[in-house]
Amino acid sequence: MADKDLNELFLDTLKDIYYAEKQILKALPKMAKAATSDKLRAAFEKHHDETEGQVERLEQVFELLGKPARGKKCDAIEGILDEGKEIMDEYADTPALDAGLLAAAQAVEHYEISRYGTLRTWAEELGLRDAATLLETTLGEEKGADQTLTDIAESAVNLDAEAA
Amino acid sequence: MADKDLNELFLDTLKDIYYAEKQILKALPKMAKAATSDKLRAAFEKHHDETEGQVERLEQVFELLGKPARGKKCDAIEGILDEGKEIMDEYADTPALDAGLLAAAQAVEHYEISRYGTLRTWAEELGLRDAATLLETTLGEEKGADQTLTDIAESAVNLDAEAA
Repeated sequence: MADKDLNELFLDTLKDIYYAEKQILKALPKMAKAATSDKLRAAFEKHHDETEGQVERLEQVFELLGKPARGKKCDAIEGILDEGKEIMDEYADTPALDAGLLAAAQAVEHYEISRYGTLRTWAEELGLRDAATLLETTLGEEKGADQTLTDIAESAVNLDAEAA
Repeated sequence: MADKDLNELFLDTLKDIYYAEKQILKALPKMAKAATSDKLRAAFEKHHDETEGQVERLEQVFELLGKPARGKKCDAIEGILDEGKEIMDEYADTPALDAGLLAAAQAVEHYEISRYGTLRTWAEELGLRDAATLLETTLGEEKGADQTLTDIAESAVNLDAEAA
């Protein structure tokens, strides 16, 4: 009984992040196009490619469960991406645009880090070792993407400090 | 010019997280009431107290900027908390409820970690040292709260492993 319910919660949350990844796949090219820094644009483009692999990994997890890969509307990612769009509109053609894009992208990464961390832990709890390994791989990529964005944000601080 | 715009973005994001913290203050007692595990309930209650201090720290940052403390509707936290409410409804009276509450709370923590990390970096970039220190203190608390939740989630896995 306990396992059955956690199985359902696991599947629900898998559908949530599957929907989220599909939305992120659509948003990243827009963010890359808007970025003025080459380094930031390259980071968004690289993460778009990674995200395609992450979607495939989720489809493998659905397959391991014997369930069709289906998304379920995720209010959280909608809200996070809406905030990003707002920043892109309000700060278009301003020198703060890249900073705003970076912040929006890090909010997305952290949402994913929390979801993949949760799903990986539940997969272990449910004895789904292959699923846990797939989710762990993606979790590592999301943490790496977040670190890349942090490095870009902090290099801006250092550049300003050197110029001062 | 560049500084002026980043100043605006900093203030906008400060209003966003101020609104978010106020919503979180309202949500935490409901989550504590719903939790079945004493450890989880205690973690939510402790974080409620911490959140009150975090709101005060944000008010000090507004004061340092010479601006009134005002929130601005934050779509991201609305979406994240809506998902949490949905879990509380759908999994009420099931053995997976605590796992769902934990996941919802970790999504909230990660949103805050991304926002405070961003704000702290921008405060440094803008030369707002006192603000950076206040934001860094809260960032440390949010990371600590997330770690507490991870420990509770993983102890469930270990308990199950021992029982197997």
